[in-house]
Amino acid sequence: MAPGAPIAQAAEQLADSHLVEQRLSSQELLHGNFLHAFRDTVRLPDGNEASREYVRHPGAVMVIAQLGDGRLVLERQYRYPVQRVMLEFPAGKLDAGEASLACAQRELLEETGYSAALWARAGVMHPVISYSTEFIDIWFAKDLTPGERKLDAGEFLDVLTATPAELLQGCRDGSVTDGKTLAGALWLQNVLSGAWTLDWQTSAASSGT
Amino acid sequence: MAPGAPIAQAAEQLADSHLVEQRLSSQELLHGNFLHAFRDTVRLPDGNEASREYVRHPGAVMVIAQLGDGRLVLERQYRYPVQRVMLEFPAGKLDAGEASLACAQRELLEETGYSAALWARAGVMHPVISYSTEFIDIWFAKDLTPGERKLDAGEFLDVLTATPAELLQGCRDGSVTDGKTLAGALWLQNVLSGAWTLDWQTSAASSGT
Repeated sequence: MAPGAPIAQAAEQLADSHLVEQRLSSQELLHGNFLHAFRDTVRLPDGNEASREYVRHPGAVMVIAQLGDGRLVLERQYRYPVQRVMLEFPAGKLDAGEASLACAQRELLEETGYSAALWARAGVMHPVISYSTEFIDIWFAKDLTPGERKLDAGEFLDVLTATPAELLQGCRDGSVTDGKTLAGALWLQNVLSGAWTLDWQTSAASSGT
Repeated sequence: MAPGAPIAQAAEQLADSHLVEQRLSSQELLHGNFLHAFRDTVRLPDGNEASREYVRHPGAVMVIAQLGDGRLVLERQYRYPVQRVMLEFPAGKLDAGEASLACAQRELLEETGYSAALWARAGVMHPVISYSTEFIDIWFAKDLTPGERKLDAGEFLDVLTATPAELLQGCRDGSVTDGKTLAGALWLQNVLSGAWTLDWQTSAASSGT
């Protein structure tokens, strides 16, 4: 299918020409310690111009790590923008040039102390398509070995475990509201039911990806 | 339980004092046409100081609207920050002072032309807890009446329908990656299976909420 892919893409873009916006120019609005924001001028499908403001983000990973007894490795962390402690799957931003799996392995180890022998990439999600370039790669991990965690200075979080049923109950009753964790719960539920399958790879075989 | 609630909240905050960050000061970084960003200085749990940069957002709603034959009302829309056309549940931002249900009704009507007689609030999600205050209220709608949509100037989107099975297949195969839509798919799957229940209300009875 590879030779046909560019043609298929071109055909799709043509079919979506009544929706697609073209960049005319780009202006940096903010280069903070964390937030990097831009305002682009775009050509709308009807020929008019509009501005689009958004945050540029390096991308991130999330890890759904399951212990031998089926329990999930979760975190509780204070999230300042929403002013509350959130229950989440472990996650973190890609370092410059870092591969997705390497990032997933690093973040799981640093934040929870666990290493995993088996990994599977489930998919990708875009958490905030209206004002950020961010994507989050969703990884499953199993065959876990506990170890020492290595939190960054100024990083405070609790590591805990819960059964899939407890996590799903939390999604239902409002104690889990983190968007990436809800998307992860969709994957988890369908993988556990057998409706969706994963392609597992050993950590060693994939360390270069 | 109301008289005890403040005590329970205080006890929870005390129990989380090893996680919670306290605001010391706040500085506006950017007041754009859309993005409104701040940098706050916070006191960390260990007594040190750190800065937190985030976007202030008014909040939003998402609508999972189901036709009589079970098909879902969906949108295809170009999302400039991620440079692609995304398949999504209808959604939109709260106007100043607007109630959540009123916003859900307005957005569904404006973007798709549908009005719904029955509504149920499923829950809330936080799409981007590390750098935005945004929340998205998740609404289900049924008993739909088609009508004329009223898009804003400069708004371009396709309205389409899909079965729940088609939507879930899209979540699995990577053609649906919008975070709010994945979280909505988790709700949809569990409501349709009967695992999670909704509290339906008529549109008229709830117009003041």
